[in-house]
Amino acid sequence: MENKNSNNVILAQLNPISGNIEYNKNKAIESIKKANEINADLIIFPELFLIGYPLGDILTRYPYIAQQSEEALNEIKNTATNTAILIGFAEKNKEKFGKPFYNSIAFIQNKEIKKIIRKSLLANYAEHNDFRYFEPAKINKEERIINLNGIKYGIAICEDSWNDFDFFEKNLYSIDPIKEIAPYVNTIICPSSSCTRAKKEQLKHNMMSHIAKKYNVNYIYVNQVGANDELVYDGYSRMYDKNGNLCAMAKGFEEDFFILNINTNKNIINPLPKGLELTLNSQKEFSLDHTPDLERTYRTIILAIKDYFKKNNFKRAVLGLSGGLDSTICAVLLADALGRENILGISMPSKLTSSDSKNDAKELASNLGINFMEIPIKDMQEAISNKFEGIFNEAQNSFSDRYNQSFTQDNIQARSRALILWGIANEFNSTIPIATSDKSELYMGYATINGDMSGGYAPISDVVKTKLFALARWMNENRPQKNAIPEAIIKKPPQAELALDPKTGKTLLAEDALMPYEFLDEVIWRIENFNQSIDNMMKSKFLYEKKNILDNQTKLQWLNKFFKRLNTAIYKWYIIPPGPIVDGRSINKIEFKQPIISDINYSK
Amino acid sequence: MENKNSNNVILAQLNPISGNIEYNKNKAIESIKKANEINADLIIFPELFLIGYPLGDILTRYPYIAQQSEEALNEIKNTATNTAILIGFAEKNKEKFGKPFYNSIAFIQNKEIKKIIRKSLLANYAEHNDFRYFEPAKINKEERIINLNGIKYGIAICEDSWNDFDFFEKNLYSIDPIKEIAPYVNTIICPSSSCTRAKKEQLKHNMMSHIAKKYNVNYIYVNQVGANDELVYDGYSRMYDKNGNLCAMAKGFEEDFFILNINTNKNIINPLPKGLELTLNSQKEFSLDHTPDLERTYRTIILAIKDYFKKNNFKRAVLGLSGGLDSTICAVLLADALGRENILGISMPSKLTSSDSKNDAKELASNLGINFMEIPIKDMQEAISNKFEGIFNEAQNSFSDRYNQSFTQDNIQARSRALILWGIANEFNSTIPIATSDKSELYMGYATINGDMSGGYAPISDVVKTKLFALARWMNENRPQKNAIPEAIIKKPPQAELALDPKTGKTLLAEDALMPYEFLDEVIWRIENFNQSIDNMMKSKFLYEKKNILDNQTKLQWLNKFFKRLNTAIYKWYIIPPGPIVDGRSINKIEFKQPIISDINYSK
Repeated sequence: MENKNSNNVILAQLNPISGNIEYNKNKAIESIKKANEINADLIIFPELFLIGYPLGDILTRYPYIAQQSEEALNEIKNTATNTAILIGFAEKNKEKFGKPFYNSIAFIQNKEIKKIIRKSLLANYAEHNDFRYFEPAKINKEERIINLNGIKYGIAICEDSWNDFDFFEKNLYSIDPIKEIAPYVNTIICPSSSCTRAKKEQLKHNMMSHIAKKYNVNYIYVNQVGANDELVYDGYSRMYDKNGNLCAMAKGFEEDFFILNINTNKNIINPLPKGLELTLNSQKEFSLDHTPDLERTYRTIILAIKDYFKKNNFKRAVLGLSGGLDSTICAVLLADALGRENILGISMPSKLTSSDSKNDAKELASNLGINFMEIPIKDMQEAISNKFEGIFNEAQNSFSDRYNQSFTQDNIQARSRALILWGIANEFNSTIPIATSDKSELYMGYATINGDMSGGYAPISDVVKTKLFALARWMNENRPQKNAIPEAIIKKPPQAELALDPKTGKTLLAEDALMPYEFLDEVIWRIENFNQSIDNMMKSKFLYEKKNILDNQTKLQWLNKFFKRLNTAIYKWYIIPPGPIVDGRSINKIEFKQPIISDINYSK
Repeated sequence: MENKNSNNVILAQLNPISGNIEYNKNKAIESIKKANEINADLIIFPELFLIGYPLGDILTRYPYIAQQSEEALNEIKNTATNTAILIGFAEKNKEKFGKPFYNSIAFIQNKEIKKIIRKSLLANYAEHNDFRYFEPAKINKEERIINLNGIKYGIAICEDSWNDFDFFEKNLYSIDPIKEIAPYVNTIICPSSSCTRAKKEQLKHNMMSHIAKKYNVNYIYVNQVGANDELVYDGYSRMYDKNGNLCAMAKGFEEDFFILNINTNKNIINPLPKGLELTLNSQKEFSLDHTPDLERTYRTIILAIKDYFKKNNFKRAVLGLSGGLDSTICAVLLADALGRENILGISMPSKLTSSDSKNDAKELASNLGINFMEIPIKDMQEAISNKFEGIFNEAQNSFSDRYNQSFTQDNIQARSRALILWGIANEFNSTIPIATSDKSELYMGYATINGDMSGGYAPISDVVKTKLFALARWMNENRPQKNAIPEAIIKKPPQAELALDPKTGKTLLAEDALMPYEFLDEVIWRIENFNQSIDNMMKSKFLYEKKNILDNQTKLQWLNKFFKRLNTAIYKWYIIPPGPIVDGRSINKIEFKQPIISDINYSK
């Protein structure tokens, strides 16, 4: 083997499709050929690339898929020429003991599989389920070190690199694979499938830089890019030098065939989303300044929508435009992700819809250049209401316990609208309706089943209301087309326009039905970031309290209302369509699993 | 300590509520007092009793719940008198390394916690997620052995007992806790939360008997009872003697305060559901003889409905009665679980509904004595259709790609019905609508979003069609009221009555739209039991082929159709309401997780 002192390495930051081995294999072969043409020494693919990530239960229910991935590996082996390859696949565990598969990386050189490196630390928290399918590998240092042109590389697959005993205050595992291999190598390679979440980028950066410095090694991270249902992989593959300095960074939120020379400083550094370096600093106090995370949020949802539609063979979206914030944000994101010609926004005014709302919806659609229709639903609402009155009177003979006040009328409006949207989706090819519920309202169950929370995808289900206001302003400033969102939409207080407030005679404002969003969003933030109980929250000073007078009785009343509503909202979380995970913690289904039957004392 | 040579042991087979520590604690204290009154030597509770099982992410999102369970443990400790106690709780892991909790059992004697036994093998497949929350404990034999009146007991928590190297051909774990402790004790105690599934009972029986015989020990199994969302725990706590003979068995599907004398043969043996001993034998061939599993199926769903309603504070159910099999079976099960006065069945005929269907629905309701209404939906259907025609014509200006044939009309009917059912649920207290989809049709996505697959609970979502026919006949024979289900309902071929068959001009039969149910159900059975690919299935002789002529081309066409439909059905699985797991494997959400974006080659 020639000793060059320097290797050209390709970080193949690609977008696979879960379970589609043929597609992923062809993508890999194409990149390998390209790498070979430019005489690259090594090409590295993301974790489990041939299977695609996330896997769900594909491997255990359809185990022949793993066999397909091993066959694809053989084909790749025979394709390869001078460029060495590191590529992930699902390896069958043939022993009597253990889980059915290994999460493995094959090292291919000169048309031979020279080594197979298996993952040891199997993430099994939040969105991760690796321990469901994979046997944790014992660490044999020799197996994890490869030699290329005289340079030694140590391989640590994703989570295998996330357990430094100094860096983390608590460690999930008592072994650290990096510690076992780093002292013996020049460079650590970490093939990953690591999805983007608020605040994760800084943590990742600090950790990788720490490891590079601590062991005096280069550190190469190759991440998947692309979205799968609720998970968005942001790419940003990169290298840190032996001093822990970032010296190369691939693009974010798109595929990249990134050429890296590990011993020069002549590498490209693509920028991260603006402001992201501030996200960790804001962790200790709740803040309404969502700015540092807005570009990332925007790009995360755009990629999520793009890939959800493309990978599921959908092309067009139809959504209701109420003139309110949620549907407005969804419309902008959809137009940017799918093209304005593929979006149909429908204003569906009921008796309670103000002319302002109608005009705002129309103006938005016109600004965005999306397709637009106005379909009044007064006739449907009245017809259904009339029919229902007869039905309810008859049903009273069976069920005596009729409510004095109910949400039936509110829901008729929301469900009539969903009926229209699903009708269009059924009638036109490759079209799906959009669920516009946001995270604050989902926490409160403030959404109608078979109504606004129904659809094929829920783009903002992991974005709280105060952040949506900030995102609206950010989009008005940062999209090529400035101020597409009418100022009136951002300024008006949120309301469903489904019911009247008996006190004012006007339509009921969401904050009156619930509590101020600023307070509500901080409760969510305290649950997801600090796991606080009601007692803890009573002892903490909320941002809202710093700006307004709030007596303890009202605060406790709001908190009790919050958790009472949350308990009945869990059923709605169970049936909400998928939406991209954006925040550090979420209630989206791929991450959070709470039994509907659960009766928790949230007090202390 | 007195040496009695014999101990009276209470198996406290109880029904906890997940997350409700106060409720579970009070239930425990009540049983402990009762045990003490009759001078029992030991009382044993199911696994994790104080927290309730399943946990979901309760522990990690609301970690103070674990603290509450430790406090409850202290209160129980102080309550106890002469009876020793084994009770499960969530123990915080205070070390730097590892998952946040242990799955632990406290041994309490003389108002002291004498020992804490921690679980080592953490199930993380199918419905199990233990490894998400719990650190696996190292096995220290002394810690797991307790001495009571001179008799030594070894504790193995649930999965810790499921890894015998001789009994299983493959083992998930390379250690066997039973092997470490059994040689040193008189009796193994296995506190469990083990849910009922088809074929599991025989496996369990054989395994427990094997262990008792192999190590010459008594084997005591204490199982949870009750249902939580999709999981049904059947109880049937029991003991095997040192020869592996079953010598005591508590009741099934209900709470039991079961008194056991471990050294006499004077114990009660409550019977298992009839026929269950045959379920393993039928494993190698698909069979239409579902008889051995029908009583268990019936009792599983009844308990599931009861507990879902009771634990969520619902009281009444409303469902559409089409005169077809699915809604019929649901109506009978609901009436038996909740009381006929709490059920409202509504016949909602459309233009396509035959008078037979209407009459069958009416007759069923009358036989069951449930509340009944007939609400024709022709007017709604026509009004919506007319409105839609205008909408679609206008929408064509935006979206050119309109289908020549669509399911829009079919879906209007199903959605109008769901609109009525949800309206009633909104208007009357403690009432939820029922989703009547069955497993065969869910596999095929043969269900309408916001229509028949919408509801608060889906009682038969894990029962295939051919089993439903058998269940109908079984219920007609075995319920106190014979033949409540009109023969015509069982005899008619399934159809949605939503569309006309262009070939016959009559309403389209489900088997014409899909494929024969007998074939379809065997495909499901081959996926769930043998993980077969299309190639494997082409090589296997189906029961349908033994009874009918089927050429390979048609067979392959059906298989391709099956897997194509399955791929688009995954989204529906994502938003279907919870329903009880009944089969050995299922697609219910608590068990099966497949990304919507997944593009699998099911061929080989």
